[in-house]
Amino acid sequence: LQVFSCNSNPALAKAICDHIGIPMGNAHVGKFSDGEIHVKLDDSVRGSDVYVIQSTSDPVNQHLMELLVMVDALRRASAGTINVVVPYYGYARQDRKARARDPITAKLVANLIETAGADRVITMDLHATQIQGFFNIPVDHLVGVPILGDYFRNKGLSDVVVVSPDHGGVIRARRLAERLEAPIAIIDKRRPEPNVAEVMNIVGDVKGKTAIIIDDIIDTAGTITLAANALLDYGAKAVYTCCTHPVFSGPAIERIRESNITEMVVTDTIPLPESKQLDKIKVLSVANLIGEAI
Amino acid sequence: LQVFSCNSNPALAKAICDHIGIPMGNAHVGKFSDGEIHVKLDDSVRGSDVYVIQSTSDPVNQHLMELLVMVDALRRASAGTINVVVPYYGYARQDRKARARDPITAKLVANLIETAGADRVITMDLHATQIQGFFNIPVDHLVGVPILGDYFRNKGLSDVVVVSPDHGGVIRARRLAERLEAPIAIIDKRRPEPNVAEVMNIVGDVKGKTAIIIDDIIDTAGTITLAANALLDYGAKAVYTCCTHPVFSGPAIERIRESNITEMVVTDTIPLPESKQLDKIKVLSVANLIGEAI
Ligand SMILES: Nc1ncnc2c1ncn2[C@@H]1O[C@H](COP(=O)(O)O)[C@@H](O)[C@H]1O
Ligand SMILES: Nc1ncnc2c1ncn2[C@@H]1O[C@H](COP(=O)(O)O)[C@@H](O)[C@H]1O
Repeated sequence: LQVFSCNSNPALAKAICDHIGIPMGNAHVGKFSDGEIHVKLDDSVRGSDVYVIQSTSDPVNQHLMELLVMVDALRRASAGTINVVVPYYGYARQDRKARARDPITAKLVANLIETAGADRVITMDLHATQIQGFFNIPVDHLVGVPILGDYFRNKGLSDVVVVSPDHGGVIRARRLAERLEAPIAIIDKRRPEPNVAEVMNIVGDVKGKTAIIIDDIIDTAGTITLAANALLDYGAKAVYTCCTHPVFSGPAIERIRESNITEMVVTDTIPLPESKQLDKIKVLSVANLIGEAI
Repeated sequence: LQVFSCNSNPALAKAICDHIGIPMGNAHVGKFSDGEIHVKLDDSVRGSDVYVIQSTSDPVNQHLMELLVMVDALRRASAGTINVVVPYYGYARQDRKARARDPITAKLVANLIETAGADRVITMDLHATQIQGFFNIPVDHLVGVPILGDYFRNKGLSDVVVVSPDHGGVIRARRLAERLEAPIAIIDKRRPEPNVAEVMNIVGDVKGKTAIIIDDIIDTAGTITLAANALLDYGAKAVYTCCTHPVFSGPAIERIRESNITEMVVTDTIPLPESKQLDKIKVLSVANLIGEAI
């Protein structure tokens, strides 16, 4: 068993190795002067079960290509099995033809990963669980709800309602609600264009309660901050939010800072650079969860 | 027949359309807030022979992914045939296992392009012509020598010697030499590490002659500027240089500016931003050549 990391999330990779109790594999993933990726494997991998840890987070195309080149190098170095661990699977929101002539990039990425030579994929909280079926190789799909649920349970909040920010997230919200023995509510929103969110209506009872909104991805934080305002307008006492994948692009940090959200709980599938760390953002690690799956 | 462009080289794509005498296809290749590529095809392509113009130049991973997503969109929109025109094929220098456990990224990229759904590839001056064999689909391989040769012939230089900067480039140098009815010389160099070049020795007679060095790629310009110095040391009267692909990374422009090179002739397979334009750099267009191949 050997674990290698590309450049998206070396801290998580290290924590996974620590959990398993093995040293990190020796490899260098760098760039030539013209920006082309350059992979150098320093350890022999012949016949070995190899795991590569890489989230396809921003810069997504570079991180994806690092993963593909790494897999290519491992395959040509006669690795026994190549298991790619993609804690955050980028391009997951391009999972269907929403309009005529749209690409389905989530499927393209699945094909690219297979073409490079991966034997198995481990990933977490896919934006659409259908993406598992985009692969012909085994996909282990881990979920963040237990980690987030334990955290909130230990906080001992009373009179909680778990809120799904859209209809697609109801199953996830229900799972968290079960762990917290709480009811759920659903936000009925319409989104006029990408990266712009508008909150409409709340289905369910939130008055006087502590709301916990759960989502898979928080990107520009437009949806979630407007959802928090709507919940407060509808009489919620306080709003906590959580997600597995803190994409936090564009105005996200600014919006979270200025928002009425008491605390935002995320995981480390995507690392937060210092410029994206706030007191009210709490990061939980998925290292043990992934370590167990390996 | 429809021609679309991604973002690497819109000016060349426009010139190709002008040569063919058709308008450019309407498509938008942009980015979401988190850096994910977003392709929007505005024209129907059903049943049509479609050409996509895209060099995989710096930022190579983004440009490659734009091409792959575009091909995915075209395929799902029922294009008749999808022909990808890659004037500069990036990652071509990773064409073999130079060391144990190296990836062969040029082959990986070929597989990715096929996986996305391309039916045919048109490219120019591959760093290794073997890369044609990395594809299972037809590859049209165009060469820049005629364009460069015509330019130098029209200059009316006398007593010319064509110089190959390494042993791998001798065939290319001989082709240019034939067009100019000139002899050839070869530089016998050793390269201690990537992006660092060292010039050694000159095989052939250059004394009192006008040397024209020809290469496929000029990247950091280390090789070519040292080669120019060596030729002058060996008594060459003047040194011209030419290549098909002006990668011009890192210190390239500084080195060319300070060099003893009289003129550097390149093509527009990779566009030169204003910061990389110098009086002594002359750009010839491959638009007509590619237009004819389409
Ligand atoms: N990286 C991205 N950033 C913002 N919007 C995206 C992104 N990728 C896809 N989308 C859009 O998000 C919508 C899908 O999101 P959803 O409805 O939540 O599944 C589609 O309209 C996509 O065009
Ligand atoms: N983008 C690049 N920039 C600089 N060197 C590279 C690049 N890609 C590959 N190489 C190296 O260049 C050498 C191959 O170049 P060549 O011997 O001219 O075919 C190999 O040692 C590669 O490791």
